[in-house]
Amino acid sequence: MKLDEAPVRANLLSAADQSLVDGVLAGQRRSLAKAITLIESTRGDHQQRAQLVLNALLPSTGKAIRIGISGVPGAGKSTFIEALGVWLIEQGKKLAVLAVDPSSSVSGGSILGDKTRMELLSQREEAFIRPSPSSGSLGGVAEKSREAMLLCEAAGYDVIIIETVGVGQSETTVAGMVDMFCLLQLPNAGDDLQAIKKGIVEIADMVVINKADIDKQATAVVRAQWRNALHMLRPASPNWSPPVIALSALHKQGIVEFWAEVEKYQAALKPTGEFAAKRQHQALSWMWQLIDSGLRQHFRHHPRVQENLPAYTRSVEAGHTTPAAAAYALLDYLKH
Amino acid sequence: MKLDEAPVRANLLSAADQSLVDGVLAGQRRSLAKAITLIESTRGDHQQRAQLVLNALLPSTGKAIRIGISGVPGAGKSTFIEALGVWLIEQGKKLAVLAVDPSSSVSGGSILGDKTRMELLSQREEAFIRPSPSSGSLGGVAEKSREAMLLCEAAGYDVIIIETVGVGQSETTVAGMVDMFCLLQLPNAGDDLQAIKKGIVEIADMVVINKADIDKQATAVVRAQWRNALHMLRPASPNWSPPVIALSALHKQGIVEFWAEVEKYQAALKPTGEFAAKRQHQALSWMWQLIDSGLRQHFRHHPRVQENLPAYTRSVEAGHTTPAAAAYALLDYLKH
Repeated sequence: MKLDEAPVRANLLSAADQSLVDGVLAGQRRSLAKAITLIESTRGDHQQRAQLVLNALLPSTGKAIRIGISGVPGAGKSTFIEALGVWLIEQGKKLAVLAVDPSSSVSGGSILGDKTRMELLSQREEAFIRPSPSSGSLGGVAEKSREAMLLCEAAGYDVIIIETVGVGQSETTVAGMVDMFCLLQLPNAGDDLQAIKKGIVEIADMVVINKADIDKQATAVVRAQWRNALHMLRPASPNWSPPVIALSALHKQGIVEFWAEVEKYQAALKPTGEFAAKRQHQALSWMWQLIDSGLRQHFRHHPRVQENLPAYTRSVEAGHTTPAAAAYALLDYLKH
Repeated sequence: MKLDEAPVRANLLSAADQSLVDGVLAGQRRSLAKAITLIESTRGDHQQRAQLVLNALLPSTGKAIRIGISGVPGAGKSTFIEALGVWLIEQGKKLAVLAVDPSSSVSGGSILGDKTRMELLSQREEAFIRPSPSSGSLGGVAEKSREAMLLCEAAGYDVIIIETVGVGQSETTVAGMVDMFCLLQLPNAGDDLQAIKKGIVEIADMVVINKADIDKQATAVVRAQWRNALHMLRPASPNWSPPVIALSALHKQGIVEFWAEVEKYQAALKPTGEFAAKRQHQALSWMWQLIDSGLRQHFRHHPRVQENLPAYTRSVEAGHTTPAAAAYALLDYLKH
């Protein structure tokens, strides 16, 4: 089996890349930042080097807790992450904050993970903040963030926070790469149904009502609604019922309670093997997504498919060919 | 472009299959049933013949209105379809009832479209009732039903009803093959949230509260809930707001109102081109689903992929290989 020899490829690392690997393993921020930049590069030679670097670091990954934080703009994500981060540092932890924001490729810059938004945290040596890669589709952005997360683990960060906006598919994508997915909500009843619509309830491991100090009555209502929705809609896990907690990130209230739930979650899932099984499932599901998209790309680039796809598309649209006949005819080109 | 010559393949029809085609076009029930059986067959030679038959009939398809009817067991689907069907026949229409029920392959027989459940309708010459194909995955069952629908259209049926149970993915699949997707509900508030969960609200073109005579007050509540949910959650179409109507299929009340909405729907969507665009989109999306699943199958059957996939899977699960490295290595085998 050739596969077992794969780690040997690490020997192909250039001296410069070997020192990059060493720097990451020593927890040097500059090396980590450089390695992430290498991974985000779209240049072919950079991508090859990035895979070698990643391979060399792989044995040192997997030890952090990976937390996804999502919420609509205005929910207070950066205030919350800053308050949480500063508190975690006080507890002796190191944390990395990464962002997944596919819209950054449109706007030309990331609206998330902006260092100026987390002023206190970005000044701390124990925190590493990295904005969303600013190019590519959601799949591309997610792949880079997934690999950046591994680099941060190799650099010794204990807590990885993946921040994302509550738009489109990005929440599902982030939920697919973290151990615990947390939804930040405002005490605003209207948000409730929107979240249900997008199927978020089914992937949330915890719901956090932020800015709970502004309107205590509304907070109580929203909290009850969420408990009800989670109870009815979330597939039951024997080991975990997602809690709904209320806090005020601005006033640093409820941070300890939040972290207590994160600890409880790990204590509940790790002994039963559910925690490890979730990571395995995520990794395999990601592998298959990449395979599917690679197959689709391979298909679209096949010369005879390229030549005939437009005509088949028109013919199916016009109802002159059934979808099945067109699909099988196009697939046939791959065989010859 | 070779594609334009495709219809010429119809000449390859055997004499027996040509008379099958003629029988379907003449509206003979026996021919129609035989043609559907041919399409449902998993034998290679049958499948080839089925595609030729379908190709020959394709120019005569597309004229019916395709209606999806979904609802949980007990919602009264067959009672409703029977009452609607008998009324439609009185109006001079011919209707075909097909079922999509992937669970039939497990139970060994279809629980839907069972002729004995629609006693009055099954005795009428103007109605054609066909149970769900009893083998294959949801994709396979759906493909057969999609093609059976085309055969029914070629046989001159004006109304095609695709019935499905409210479980899993089958509702989304059926919504993807009909012009108008109708959800049958009971005056039972709990169902509401379940439907929201499954994303049904977003695909329903009409909601029908059946058995409205049993509890008028509950009906009014559920109707209001549905109106609210549709208003908040359904992507707005400039041409159609899904109505919520209440009826009693058992007492044949509300059937006329139901059909009036179907007519209104067509009148609203046909002149703007939305109706035709929806069919085109459905056909192309179906083509791509079949292509994707064909590519995946092709991939899994590649000798070197078959040989190496288990080891890569284990290595990704163990965290020794990144999902991306495994995916690209496996995809590489296809190139050599």
